[in-house]
Amino acid sequence: MSVAEEFTLDFARSERIGLEEAIFCAGKSPEQIDAILESARARGASLLLTRLDPEKRDRLDAAARLDYCPVSRTAVFGEAPRITGPARVAVVAAGTSDVPVAREALRVLAYAGRAAALFADVGVAGLWRLTTRIEEIRAHPVVIVAAGMDAALPSVVGGLVAGAVIAVPTSVGYGVAAGGRAALDAVLASCAPGITVVNIDNGYGAACAALRLLHAAGRLAAETER
Amino acid sequence: MSVAEEFTLDFARSERIGLEEAIFCAGKSPEQIDAILESARARGASLLLTRLDPEKRDRLDAAARLDYCPVSRTAVFGEAPRITGPARVAVVAAGTSDVPVAREALRVLAYAGRAAALFADVGVAGLWRLTTRIEEIRAHPVVIVAAGMDAALPSVVGGLVAGAVIAVPTSVGYGVAAGGRAALDAVLASCAPGITVVNIDNGYGAACAALRLLHAAGRLAAETER
Amino acid sequence: MSVAEEFTLDFARSERIGLEEAIFCAGKSPEQIDAILESARARGASLLLTRLDPEKRDRLDAAARLDYCPVSRTAVFGEAPRITGPARVAVVAAGTSDVPVAREALRVLAYAGRAAALFADVGVAGLWRLTTRIEEIRAHPVVIVAAGMDAALPSVVGGLVAGAVIAVPTSVGYGVAAGGRAALDAVLASCAPGITVVNIDNGYGAACAALRLLHAAGRLAAETER
Amino acid sequence: MSVAEEFTLDFARSERIGLEEAIFCAGKSPEQIDAILESARARGASLLLTRLDPEKRDRLDAAARLDYCPVSRTAVFGEAPRITGPARVAVVAAGTSDVPVAREALRVLAYAGRAAALFADVGVAGLWRLTTRIEEIRAHPVVIVAAGMDAALPSVVGGLVAGAVIAVPTSVGYGVAAGGRAALDAVLASCAPGITVVNIDNGYGAACAALRLLHAAGRLAAETER
Amino acid sequence: MSVAEEFTLDFARSERIGLEEAIFCAGKSPEQIDAILESARARGASLLLTRLDPEKRDRLDAAARLDYCPVSRTAVFGEAPRITGPARVAVVAAGTSDVPVAREALRVLAYAGRAAALFADVGVAGLWRLTTRIEEIRAHPVVIVAAGMDAALPSVVGGLVAGAVIAVPTSVGYGVAAGGRAALDAVLASCAPGITVVNIDNGYGAACAALRLLHAAGRLAAETER
Amino acid sequence: MSVAEEFTLDFARSERIGLEEAIFCAGKSPEQIDAILESARARGASLLLTRLDPEKRDRLDAAARLDYCPVSRTAVFGEAPRITGPARVAVVAAGTSDVPVAREALRVLAYAGRAAALFADVGVAGLWRLTTRIEEIRAHPVVIVAAGMDAALPSVVGGLVAGAVIAVPTSVGYGVAAGGRAALDAVLASCAPGITVVNIDNGYGAACAALRLLHAAGRLAAETER
Amino acid sequence: MSVAEEFTLDFARSERIGLEEAIFCAGKSPEQIDAILESARARGASLLLTRLDPEKRDRLDAAARLDYCPVSRTAVFGEAPRITGPARVAVVAAGTSDVPVAREALRVLAYAGRAAALFADVGVAGLWRLTTRIEEIRAHPVVIVAAGMDAALPSVVGGLVAGAVIAVPTSVGYGVAAGGRAALDAVLASCAPGITVVNIDNGYGAACAALRLLHAAGRLAAETER
Amino acid sequence: MSVAEEFTLDFARSERIGLEEAIFCAGKSPEQIDAILESARARGASLLLTRLDPEKRDRLDAAARLDYCPVSRTAVFGEAPRITGPARVAVVAAGTSDVPVAREALRVLAYAGRAAALFADVGVAGLWRLTTRIEEIRAHPVVIVAAGMDAALPSVVGGLVAGAVIAVPTSVGYGVAAGGRAALDAVLASCAPGITVVNIDNGYGAACAALRLLHAAGRLAAETER
Repeated sequence: MSVAEEFTLDFARSERIGLEEAIFCAGKSPEQIDAILESARARGASLLLTRLDPEKRDRLDAAARLDYCPVSRTAVFGEAPRITGPARVAVVAAGTSDVPVAREALRVLAYAGRAAALFADVGVAGLWRLTTRIEEIRAHPVVIVAAGMDAALPSVVGGLVAGAVIAVPTSVGYGVAAGGRAALDAVLASCAPGITVVNIDNGYGAACAALRLLHAAGRLAAETER
Repeated sequence: MSVAEEFTLDFARSERIGLEEAIFCAGKSPEQIDAILESARARGASLLLTRLDPEKRDRLDAAARLDYCPVSRTAVFGEAPRITGPARVAVVAAGTSDVPVAREALRVLAYAGRAAALFADVGVAGLWRLTTRIEEIRAHPVVIVAAGMDAALPSVVGGLVAGAVIAVPTSVGYGVAAGGRAALDAVLASCAPGITVVNIDNGYGAACAALRLLHAAGRLAAETER
Repeated sequence: MSVAEEFTLDFARSERIGLEEAIFCAGKSPEQIDAILESARARGASLLLTRLDPEKRDRLDAAARLDYCPVSRTAVFGEAPRITGPARVAVVAAGTSDVPVAREALRVLAYAGRAAALFADVGVAGLWRLTTRIEEIRAHPVVIVAAGMDAALPSVVGGLVAGAVIAVPTSVGYGVAAGGRAALDAVLASCAPGITVVNIDNGYGAACAALRLLHAAGRLAAETER
Repeated sequence: MSVAEEFTLDFARSERIGLEEAIFCAGKSPEQIDAILESARARGASLLLTRLDPEKRDRLDAAARLDYCPVSRTAVFGEAPRITGPARVAVVAAGTSDVPVAREALRVLAYAGRAAALFADVGVAGLWRLTTRIEEIRAHPVVIVAAGMDAALPSVVGGLVAGAVIAVPTSVGYGVAAGGRAALDAVLASCAPGITVVNIDNGYGAACAALRLLHAAGRLAAETER
Repeated sequence: MSVAEEFTLDFARSERIGLEEAIFCAGKSPEQIDAILESARARGASLLLTRLDPEKRDRLDAAARLDYCPVSRTAVFGEAPRITGPARVAVVAAGTSDVPVAREALRVLAYAGRAAALFADVGVAGLWRLTTRIEEIRAHPVVIVAAGMDAALPSVVGGLVAGAVIAVPTSVGYGVAAGGRAALDAVLASCAPGITVVNIDNGYGAACAALRLLHAAGRLAAETER
Repeated sequence: MSVAEEFTLDFARSERIGLEEAIFCAGKSPEQIDAILESARARGASLLLTRLDPEKRDRLDAAARLDYCPVSRTAVFGEAPRITGPARVAVVAAGTSDVPVAREALRVLAYAGRAAALFADVGVAGLWRLTTRIEEIRAHPVVIVAAGMDAALPSVVGGLVAGAVIAVPTSVGYGVAAGGRAALDAVLASCAPGITVVNIDNGYGAACAALRLLHAAGRLAAETER
Repeated sequence: MSVAEEFTLDFARSERIGLEEAIFCAGKSPEQIDAILESARARGASLLLTRLDPEKRDRLDAAARLDYCPVSRTAVFGEAPRITGPARVAVVAAGTSDVPVAREALRVLAYAGRAAALFADVGVAGLWRLTTRIEEIRAHPVVIVAAGMDAALPSVVGGLVAGAVIAVPTSVGYGVAAGGRAALDAVLASCAPGITVVNIDNGYGAACAALRLLHAAGRLAAETER
Repeated sequence: MSVAEEFTLDFARSERIGLEEAIFCAGKSPEQIDAILESARARGASLLLTRLDPEKRDRLDAAARLDYCPVSRTAVFGEAPRITGPARVAVVAAGTSDVPVAREALRVLAYAGRAAALFADVGVAGLWRLTTRIEEIRAHPVVIVAAGMDAALPSVVGGLVAGAVIAVPTSVGYGVAAGGRAALDAVLASCAPGITVVNIDNGYGAACAALRLLHAAGRLAAETER
C-alpha cells in the first residue's frame, strides 16, 4: 500500500467554489504532506497549508521551500498572488492571546490576494479600546472577530456595525472557557442579530467565509451594473 | 412597578446596523408584548415578532392586528415593505420537517423587502434530489441551508456552490440528534470551507446574516462603481 | 409517618448569617408547605417563599394569607419589614425576558427592608441603551445583572463600574442558550475582572449575596468609625 | 502477586463467535504484553495486537518477533493466514487524515484472511472525488466508511449503495470536532437509513463487524443452497 | 407557498439501496403527512410511517386507511408484502420496557416481507433468562438487541453468538440513564468485538441495517453459486 | 403477538442474590403491568412495584389490590412481611424536597421486613440541624443519605460516622442542579473516604444496597460465631 | 508563608470513622508531601499515600523510606499492620488493563490489615471466564468490581452474588469510553439491583467502602451476640 | 506586522473600576509579554502577571526583574504597594492541593495593598478542622473559599458566617472531579444562600471580587459618615 493512493487533490475547487484547495496538516504524516506537495509541484500549482506545527514542518523534505509563519502555523508552497485593492475585511482580535487565530485569517486572505486590516486587543473589559477604533472597523464591509473566554466582543461589534460579522470563538481561557466551547456558545446565542459563526480557532474558515462573501458581492455588483 | 419600564425599544437599530428591531416573544408575557406593540403604534412603527406561539398570540389584545404565520411562529405588526427585485437568497430545507425554520427565514427576508426562493426536501439520503436542483440553487449568491439530524447537506452544498453559505442546524431528530446539537457540531466541523453557522433553529438569524451580507455587497458595488 | 417530621426550620439563621430562612417551594407538596407555614405562624414568624408556581399557590390552605407575586413566583407570609434608606443595589435586566429573575431579586431585597432600583432592557445589542443609563447604575455600590443568551452585558458593566458586580445568568434563549448554561459559562469566563456569579435564574441568591455584602460593609463601616 | 494471574486468554473465542482473540495494548504494561505473548507462543497460537504505540513496542522483549505497522499501530505475532478470494469489503477514508483508522480495519481483515480494497480521500467537500469511484465501491457488499469532522460521507454513501454500511467516526478535527464526538453523533443521526456505527477510531471493531457479517452471509448462503 | 413544494418523495430509493422510502412523522404537520400519502396514493405506492403519535394519527384525513400499531407508533399505508421464508433475524429486548423499540424493528422487517422472532425480557440481571434461550437466538444469523439503562445485554450476547449483532440503545431508565446516552455509550464501548450500533430508540434503523445485511448476503450467495 | 411473551419474571432472584424481584413501572404499559401482576398472583407471589405514577395506577385492573404510596410512587401487591428487629438503617434526607426519595428507600426496606429510621431536613446550610441528631444517626451501622443541589451532606456525614454510607443524589434543584448531575458528581467526588453512590433519585437501589450489606453482615456474623 | 501552615493532619480520623488518614498526592508538591511525612514521623504515625507518580516519588526526601508500588501508585510510610484472618473481600478486574485500579484497592485493604483475593480478566466478552470462577467469588461477602469500557461485568456479577457489590468504573478505553464516564454511567444505571459505585479509577474509595462495611458488619455481629 | 500592534494596555482601568490592569500570560508569547512589560516600564507603571509558567518566565528578557512566585504562577513587575491595615479577607483552602489557588488570591490582594489571612486544609471530611478555626474566619467580613472535588466546604462555611462568601472551585481531583466542573456545579447549587462563585481555579478573580467589595464597602462607609 502506497502513500500515493492516500490522497486525491481537488484542483478543480477554485473553479467550482472560488476557493483554492488547502491542506489541513493535523493528523497527516510528514510523508503524506511531502507527497501532496510533490504532486502540486508536478502540476505547477501552489498550495496553502494550515495547522502545520513547527515540529512537523522541520520533518518535511520540502521545509525549505515553504513560506512559513509559526504564529499562525500556516505555510505557502509555491507562488502566492499579489495583494491588490483596498482592505475590505477587518480582522478584530479581542485580546492579545487571540492574535494567532486572527493571523491565520489574515494569511488566508493574503494567499487569496485580498488586503485586510488587523485590530488587536480591543475587548469589552475596557470599552474605550473598542469605541476609539469602531469608526475604522466600520469602514470595512466584512468584519471577522476572534474572541475567547466570554466572547462578548462579537455581540457588541454586531450591535455597532452594519456589515457582515463573522465570529471566530477561540480556545483562549481556562476553567469553563477551556477548549472554547463557552466562547462558541456565547457567539451562537448572541443577542446581536445576524452574526455568523465558524468552528473554534478556525481563522481559516472565517477567511474562507469572507472570500465567499466577497465573491457573492462581486456577482451582485456585476448583475447590478448590467 | 410598571410594565412600561421593562422594555427599551431600539428604533435606531436600522440606521445603525441596517436591521429593524424585532421582538423575541419567548419568555415575554402577553402584557409585555402588548405594551411593546402599543409603543410601536404610538410611533407609527412596524414590528416583526418571532417565536410567538399560537397560544400566546391568542392572549394578545393586538391579536387581530397581526399578520401571523403559525408554521414559522412569526407575526408582522403594521405595514410591511413591498418585496422588490429578483431573489438573491436561496433557502434550502434538507427535509420536510425543517420547513418551519426555513419559513421563518423567508418571512424575515420578506419583511425586509427581499425576494427569496425555497428548495425543500433535498437532503443527501437521495442525492438526486439535490443534484437535479443544484443549478437553480447556485444561481443565488447567498444560500441558507436548514438541516437537522446529521446536517450533511450544508457540507455537500458548500462543496458545490461558490456563494455565501449560511447553515442553520435544526432540532429535528431524536436520540443523539434531539435538540440539534449533533447538527450544530456537524456544520461547525464541516469539511467544506467557509460555511458559516447560526444558532439551532435560528431562521431569523440566518435571514439577518443574509441581509447584512446583501448590505455589504451593496456597499462594495457602490464603491466599485465610483 | 407524618409531615411534621419532614422539616426542621432554621429560625436561628438570621442571627447566624444575617439572612432569614426562606422556603424553596419547588419539590415540596402543598401539604408540606402548609405545615411549614403553620409552624411559622405558631412562632409568630414571617417567611419568604420562592419558586411557588401559581398552581401550587392555589392548592395551599394559606393561599389567601400570602402576598404573592406571579411574575417572580415569590410570596411573603406574615409581616414584611418597611423598606428604609436610599437604594444601594441596582438590579439590571439585559432584556425584557430577564425581568422575572430581576423581580425575584427585588422582592428578596424588599423583604429584607432594602431599597433597590430596576434597570431593564439595556442589553449590548444596542449599546446606547446602556451608555445612557450607566451613570445612574454606577451610583449604586452593588450591581446585580441578570442576562441570558450570550450574557455579554455583565462583562461590559464590569468594565464600567467600580462596585461589586453579581451576575445572574438566565435560562432565556433557545438552541445552545436553552437552560442557561451558555450564559452561565460566559459570565464565569468574563474578561472583566472580579465579577461574581450565582446559579442560573437565581435571583434569590443574587439578592442574598448583595445582603451579605451590605452586612460586611456595615461591619467595616462600624470598625472604621471606632 | 504475579503478572500471570492478571490475564485469561480467550482461545475459544474463534470457535464461539468466529473472531480470534486480540490484545488491546493501551493500558497494559510491557510486562503484561510480553507475558501474554509468551502464553500464546506456548500454545502455538498467533495473536493480533491493537493500539500498540511505537514506544511500547520498543519496550517489548518480543518486539523483534512482531509484524508491526506504525500507521495503524497494529502488530501480528506468529503466523497470519493467507488472504484468499475476491475483496468483499471496501474500506473508504473520507480524508487523508482518516487513513490510519482505515489501515487498522484493513490489517484486521487481512489477519482474518479476507481481501479488502482502500478508497482514500473521497470526502464530500469535492463530490466528484466520490462520484467517480462510487461504482467501484458499490461492487463490494460491505462498505466501511471512516470519517471525522462532520462525517457527512457515510450519509452520502449510505444513500448510494445497497450493501451494508459500517461507519467509523474518527477523532480527526479540532474545536467541536476534537475527540470525534461530533462525527459520532452525525453518523448515528444519519438521514440515510440502516447505517451502523462503531466507536470513535475503532477500525478494529468495524473490521470485526464486517467479519461477523460475512460469517452470517456464509451461513445464509449455505442454508439457501440446501 | 403550498405544502406540495415542501416534500420530494424518493420512490427510486428501493432500486438504489434496496430499502423503501419511509416517512418520519415527528416534526411534520398532519397537512404535510396527508399530502405525502395522497402523493403516494396517486402513484399506487405503499408507504411506511414511523414515529406517528396516536394524537397526530387521529388528526390525519387518511387515519382510517392506515394499519396502525400504537406500541411501535408505526403505520402502513397501502398494501404490505406477504412475509415469506424462515426467520433470519432475532429481535431481543433486554426488558419489558424495551419492547416498543423491538416492535418497531419487527414492523419494519415485516413491511419488507421478512420473518423475525422476538425474545423479550432476557436482560443480564437474571442471567438464566438469557442462557435458557441463547441457542434459539444463535440460530438466527442476524441479532438485533434493544437495551436501555446500562445496556449490558448486547455485550454478553456479542460474546456468545457468531452472527451480526446490531445494538439499539433505548431511552429506558432515569437519572444518568435518562435519554439513553448511557446505554448508547455502553454499547459503543462494548468489550465484545464487532457489535454495531444505531441511534437511541432507532428500531427502524436497526431493521434497515438488518435488511442491508440480508441484501449483501443474498449478493454473496448469488456470487458463490456462480 | 401477545403481552405474555413480553416479560419473564425472575422468581429465583431472592434465592440467588437475596433480593426479591421488583417491577420498574416507568416505560411499561398498564396492560403489561396487569399481566405481570396476574402472573405473580397465579404463583401466590408478592411483588413490589416502583416508579408507578398515580395516573398509571388508576389505569390498572389491579389498582384496588395494591398498597400504594403516592409520595414514593411505590406499591406492594400481595402480602408484605412483618417488620422485625431494631432499626439498622438510618435514612437521612438533606431537605424536605428529598423526602420522596427517602420514603422510597424506607418502603423497600419495609417490604424486606427491615426496620429503619427517617431523619429529614438536616442539610448543612444550618449545621446545628445535623449536629443535634448525629449521635442518633451514628447508632445505625448503615446510613443512606438522600441529597440534591450541592449534595454536601453525605460528605459531612461520611466524616462523622464509621458505618457504611450510601449516598443517593436527588434531582432537587434548578439551573446547574437540574436533573441531579451536580449532586451525583459531588458525592462521587466526595472528600470523605468510602462513600458509595447509587443512581440519581434511586431510593430503591440504595435500599437494595443496604439489604445486600445486611446480608453480608449476617454471613460474617455467622462465620465469626462458628 | 511556610509549608507547615498548608496542611492539618486528621490523626483522629481512625477513631471517628474507622479509617486511617491517607495522603492524596496528586496536586501536592514534593515539599508539601515531605513536610507531611515528617509530621507523621514526629508523632510515630504511619501513613498511606495514594496517586503518587514515580516521578514525584523520586523527588521526595523520604523516597527511600517508602514501601512503593508503581502499578497502583501507592506507598506506605512507616509500619503497616499484619494481615490477618480469611479473605472477606474479592477484588475483580474485568480486563488486564483494569489491574492497576484493582491493585490500589488491594493495597489499601492490606494497609488496614485485611486479606483479599484478586480475580483478573474475567470480563463478559468471554462469559466462561466469569462462570468458571463465580463460585470462588461468591464465597466473599464483599465484592469489588473494577471495569472500564462498557462496564457490563458489575451488572452480571450483581445478578449472580448475594453479597455487597462495589463497582469501580475505570478510565480504560478510548472514544466514548475515554475518561471513564461511559463506564460510570453504565454501573450507575445497572439493571442489577443494589450495586453501589465510587468515582472513576477510585480503587482507594472502593476499599474504604469495603472497610466501612466490614466495620458495620462487626458491629452487627457484636450486637447479635449480646 | 509587529508585536506592538497586538496589545492595548488599559492603564485607565484603576480609575474606572478600582482594579489595576493585569496581564493574563497563558496564550501569550514571550515576545508579546516582553513588549508589554517594556511598554509599562516606559510609562513607569507596575504590572501584575498571572498564569505565568516557570518555563515561559525563563524565556522572558525581563525574567530577572520580576518578583515571581512559582506556586501561584504570579509575578509582579515594578514596585508593589505596601500592605496596610488589618486583614479584612480570609482565604480558606479546603485541602493542601488547593493552596496554589489560594496563594494566587493572596498575591493579588497583596499587590493591591490589602492584608489577608490563609486558612489551609480545613475541609469537611474532618469537621473539627473547620470548627476549631471558624471563629477566626468569621472575624473577616469577606471570606474566599477555594475547594475542589465535591466542594462541600463553601456550603458549610456559608451556613456559619454572615460576611460575603466567594467560592473558587478548583480543578483538584480525578474522575468526575477532573477539570473542576463538579466543584463548580456544587458551589453554584449550594444550599447555603448568597454564596457567589468565580471561574474554576480563578484565585485572581476571587481577589478582584473581594477588592470590588471592599471598594463598595468603603463608599458605603463614607456615605454613612456624611
